[in-house]
Amino acid sequence: MDDAPTSERHFSHAEAVKYITNALARENVSQSNALSVATALVNAEIDGQKGHGFSRVASYALQARSGKVAGDATPQARLNGTSMLHIDAANGFAFPAIDLAIQRLVPLCAKTGIAAAGLTRSHHCGQLGAHVERLAEAGCVAVMFANSPKAMAPWGGNAPLFGTNPIAFATPRQEGQPPLVIDLSLSKVARGKVMAAAKAGNDIPEGWALNASGDPTTDPKAALAGSMVPAGDAKGAALALMVEILSATLTGANHSYDATSFFDAEGDPPGVGQFIIAINTSHIGGPSFTNRLETLIEAILGQDGTRLPGEKRLRNRAHCRANGFAVAPHLITEIDGLEQ
Amino acid sequence: MDDAPTSERHFSHAEAVKYITNALARENVSQSNALSVATALVNAEIDGQKGHGFSRVASYALQARSGKVAGDATPQARLNGTSMLHIDAANGFAFPAIDLAIQRLVPLCAKTGIAAAGLTRSHHCGQLGAHVERLAEAGCVAVMFANSPKAMAPWGGNAPLFGTNPIAFATPRQEGQPPLVIDLSLSKVARGKVMAAAKAGNDIPEGWALNASGDPTTDPKAALAGSMVPAGDAKGAALALMVEILSATLTGANHSYDATSFFDAEGDPPGVGQFIIAINTSHIGGPSFTNRLETLIEAILGQDGTRLPGEKRLRNRAHCRANGFAVAPHLITEIDGLEQ
Repeated sequence: MDDAPTSERHFSHAEAVKYITNALARENVSQSNALSVATALVNAEIDGQKGHGFSRVASYALQARSGKVAGDATPQARLNGTSMLHIDAANGFAFPAIDLAIQRLVPLCAKTGIAAAGLTRSHHCGQLGAHVERLAEAGCVAVMFANSPKAMAPWGGNAPLFGTNPIAFATPRQEGQPPLVIDLSLSKVARGKVMAAAKAGNDIPEGWALNASGDPTTDPKAALAGSMVPAGDAKGAALALMVEILSATLTGANHSYDATSFFDAEGDPPGVGQFIIAINTSHIGGPSFTNRLETLIEAILGQDGTRLPGEKRLRNRAHCRANGFAVAPHLITEIDGLEQ
Repeated sequence: MDDAPTSERHFSHAEAVKYITNALARENVSQSNALSVATALVNAEIDGQKGHGFSRVASYALQARSGKVAGDATPQARLNGTSMLHIDAANGFAFPAIDLAIQRLVPLCAKTGIAAAGLTRSHHCGQLGAHVERLAEAGCVAVMFANSPKAMAPWGGNAPLFGTNPIAFATPRQEGQPPLVIDLSLSKVARGKVMAAAKAGNDIPEGWALNASGDPTTDPKAALAGSMVPAGDAKGAALALMVEILSATLTGANHSYDATSFFDAEGDPPGVGQFIIAINTSHIGGPSFTNRLETLIEAILGQDGTRLPGEKRLRNRAHCRANGFAVAPHLITEIDGLEQ
């Protein structure tokens, strides 16, 4: 890798998508899957969610190379009843399966009022809010749940069992306003922050994580061997159980404690699950829904010190869309190095 | 009230339902509505949720007497699309409208896979978990959201805007096991605990609530004039916004900040909303759903120190079903006093 870049590289959105698409296509990832994955990773990157962006490319490529992820999988949808989709991600990347879910849910919930998609044999789904945001751009209120490899203990226990099991929600707003998006993991802080501290050799604040004995720790390595503290303590742990049941037990996916890593290229596919609910507002809220929502938002923003969830994300996105963005040299080295 | 009891009164479940039904029927509450409300209140009482039990009877009766609640309301259901019910509680008590929602959702989601009911012009819905538990007893996975009069500020703000906006979830388990039920408000602690401390003249722990200026307080009266701290801080506040949009904006109900008190008999009806989602597991999880769930539950209970949510509730219930239960004299005095 004597041609490794020594400085960051600058990309436009389109250049970045092309760059990642090519990197994945070299590893047995079909062109359409590679484009879907690349688009999701670049969108996360420019939203400021770097843990779900360029930092994943090399790991994804190596998982496609080893066959842990089936790069050429074609997700399949089956409609059960009138309103429930079961989507088999076929041990491929999550994003093509989520694309299929969104594509099917929008017309379906227009007809039914509410519809859902349960995804099985899935993988890391990145920035959860981005998926519900797309449903909201298409006019739906949407809620999404996902499980992930074990990182959080059940309340009262010591050993990780649940993932950080995020919840995301989005709703359309009035004409000209981007959707309102809520996106949160049920751990007190993202596990990525602990991983970053471990990499940098820094301590973490007490209250973020427990060591393997269930005691509070400020050592990020002990934290990674232990478990993350749930947001809101017992309440976050209870919600993580709800997310686990909806996204995995119900869909037929692997439970978090059976899921392999999203990062390394070893072992069986993670086989995690996602559950997405889409609601058509015209079947219940009627045309006044957006007016009523704007009234609520005005009441929130009328108080000093408040902001809507996701404002920072939208600012990041607008800036990167307009000006392009830089990617750290070690990530470029890592991705270009895959070719050697 | 010279015949006021000076000691607690002992009831069986059936006697308690009859006693409350009669108390409400004397106040223009139709017999069927009175029975629905009485059953819900007694069930909350024996589950140990006393804030949603006998303590509400006099307040409910006075709201029916003043006309703030329409005691003879007949809730109406309208099906939109194939899967979305809109239920008008008609400014009556919430429970008859929720009974109607449950009765309609069970056969509906068996056909559709997923179905939902949005309730408007509704009232205090008591123990949220009890409603999803009934759906789970009928074989559905269920999630419920409710708003309530303002008690919690948006994140960064000082003035209450959201209710404590609870979330409840239930799932059927294997034959012979009661449903697994999760029921939590999005405030760090229930507002009833602050009200109880104010009544008893005790301080509250720091971290529960903020005064009207947004500063932490240990004075329960200042807390009641201020706002409750959300569970998990910003995350709980974001989830409260999600619950507000699903249960009120979407259904057409009053937002929390427009809802009148659930306690006093003055002013307009509260007009709050509820949103209930019911999922038929056979449309997605298949027959293995309950086996998979038991495996998950075993993994949780296999760790020392863990328990399932709701265990205490079930113990309370079993004890009271077997032995009856006592109601404090001041509540009996209050209820009997309505007759004077």
